[in-house]
Amino acid sequence: MNGTGCPIGEARYREIVSAHGAGGRLMHSLIRDVLLGGEARGAVVHDGAVLDVGGGRIAFTTDSYTVTPLFFPGGDIGCLSVWGTGNDLAMCGARPRWLSCGVILEEGFPVEILERIMASMRSAAEGVGAEIVTGDTKVVERGKGDGIYINTAGIGWVHPAATIGPNRIVPGDLIILNGDIGRHGIAILTAREGLEFEHGVLSDAADLSDVVWAMLEAGVELHCLRDLTRGGLASGLVELSEGVDLEFRLKCGRISVDPAVETACDLLGLDPMHVANEGRFVAVLPEGSVESALRVMAGRGHAGVVIGRVGAEGPAGVRLETEYGTESWVRMLSGAPLPRIC
Amino acid sequence: MNGTGCPIGEARYREIVSAHGAGGRLMHSLIRDVLLGGEARGAVVHDGAVLDVGGGRIAFTTDSYTVTPLFFPGGDIGCLSVWGTGNDLAMCGARPRWLSCGVILEEGFPVEILERIMASMRSAAEGVGAEIVTGDTKVVERGKGDGIYINTAGIGWVHPAATIGPNRIVPGDLIILNGDIGRHGIAILTAREGLEFEHGVLSDAADLSDVVWAMLEAGVELHCLRDLTRGGLASGLVELSEGVDLEFRLKCGRISVDPAVETACDLLGLDPMHVANEGRFVAVLPEGSVESALRVMAGRGHAGVVIGRVGAEGPAGVRLETEYGTESWVRMLSGAPLPRIC
Repeated sequence: MNGTGCPIGEARYREIVSAHGAGGRLMHSLIRDVLLGGEARGAVVHDGAVLDVGGGRIAFTTDSYTVTPLFFPGGDIGCLSVWGTGNDLAMCGARPRWLSCGVILEEGFPVEILERIMASMRSAAEGVGAEIVTGDTKVVERGKGDGIYINTAGIGWVHPAATIGPNRIVPGDLIILNGDIGRHGIAILTAREGLEFEHGVLSDAADLSDVVWAMLEAGVELHCLRDLTRGGLASGLVELSEGVDLEFRLKCGRISVDPAVETACDLLGLDPMHVANEGRFVAVLPEGSVESALRVMAGRGHAGVVIGRVGAEGPAGVRLETEYGTESWVRMLSGAPLPRIC
Repeated sequence: MNGTGCPIGEARYREIVSAHGAGGRLMHSLIRDVLLGGEARGAVVHDGAVLDVGGGRIAFTTDSYTVTPLFFPGGDIGCLSVWGTGNDLAMCGARPRWLSCGVILEEGFPVEILERIMASMRSAAEGVGAEIVTGDTKVVERGKGDGIYINTAGIGWVHPAATIGPNRIVPGDLIILNGDIGRHGIAILTAREGLEFEHGVLSDAADLSDVVWAMLEAGVELHCLRDLTRGGLASGLVELSEGVDLEFRLKCGRISVDPAVETACDLLGLDPMHVANEGRFVAVLPEGSVESALRVMAGRGHAGVVIGRVGAEGPAGVRLETEYGTESWVRMLSGAPLPRIC
């Protein structure tokens, strides 16, 4: 038993369950086997596609946003739908340039709320230097939606120096994380359930394209990037590790969790490693690039820290070393403890 | 009174109503004023954005699909989500190349149905020469969706010879329609309501990018293209006419309607001019290009016919001349007699 997550037995599922959208193993198998028709089977499904258009390379990605509530501490569905898609582009080494906006509205949704959300979306787009150039609206009957769902597809220019992807990960690479984990999921959950903790938790939702672009401009050699949304840090790293068939070793003490997030996770029986982020990512890069990467991150307000290393040999999996020298395997998220966080 | 459609009084709407998604005036004001933040106010909202990428021009567009039922005579939500988006690209003079696929699934949706839909989507993509390169799934609780909603954004290469847009329409241009109207809307409606007519009506849902590309390759000078989806032929032409402030004059006898569609429309109190199509478009072009356009259309199985002409002067509006010499103004669709047809 390698402990990296037991298969959930996808074949048993005849109906869609919440976990199919939760960012764990079941969602990835659904995207690979059903959406992409098995063509990508075995490959690591990356955040976006990189396409050659003659005058350079563009990245292209899509994300639908169904977050509830629509407004939460630190953001709303509007800015999230720009940052989330922009961050997928950033993970390809691209800077968002053009965005689409497809909204599915439920009858009865207040126009004033829609206007606030769209204003937030446009403001976030301006902030990342992108334009919303095409849009579509559909309206569904009451009880067939949940106020508003937004799809944002995005196109961005890939940095000329970027060659980023799981296949570039090599033994000895270091793994950098850009801040504390779990704030987005907990912020959503507390807003949704009306929970109160001593210190309110703000979502970490933010643009990542600026810091990634700055690293590329500074000549940082980035092997692979992964934003840590649904399924959290654990799922992102396990998927990468399995995809490249190399062991990742993490130092538990390096991974920072806000005390309020820790309290909330303890109370709710959640592991912060599985809780979603919307402004956190890992960079896998050669040791020689770490110093400049951390310098660029710090200059842009990101608390970057080396959390681990890619091992020299398998088996694939993510091992977490505690401060006491004990070790455990990190598992990909299974089930859906926190649905609809993005 | 110019008769081109009385304003619905958008300001009165504080909540989203079905008509906001129906393809008429209310939807267009919502997209312009709220989604695009008024920046496109006064401009004709075209089907997609044309973007210069150095090595050529790409078109970029998005559409969400909420059609019910998911399977209908002549198609399903899967192929529709490829053709619909591909047709928006075609209306920019582009051939679809890369597609995204974002699905919003309701818990409990049968995986087998999802597989059938995705197979239809991939097959349609292959048929138009496009690849689905990026995807996303979200799952919402029962009662917060309707089985499946699909968003398909698309990128296509614009033909080097294409300069297509409302601003190119000039007095004297002719207007070509590529077939009979109203079949898609009636096919959906009969499938949804379980209605039976003597002759079943098949949706006209089809790819249009092939015939448009062939016209461009044949050197046909296309001034403007418009696919006739939500709101039908009437809404598409009224919007164009108002956008360019020129009168369009149509010959009623040239516009063909299948007898079964006509019967259904009579029974249901619908005007075929307002009923949605998913494989019909108008081309506005100079008289000198008409013959070759019709030849290319015929070679690809499209029953192209000249239905009218752009007048030399205003006021803007679409006039329909009957065979008896009487005239009436064509109005943009108001209300939402046929919701969720795409």
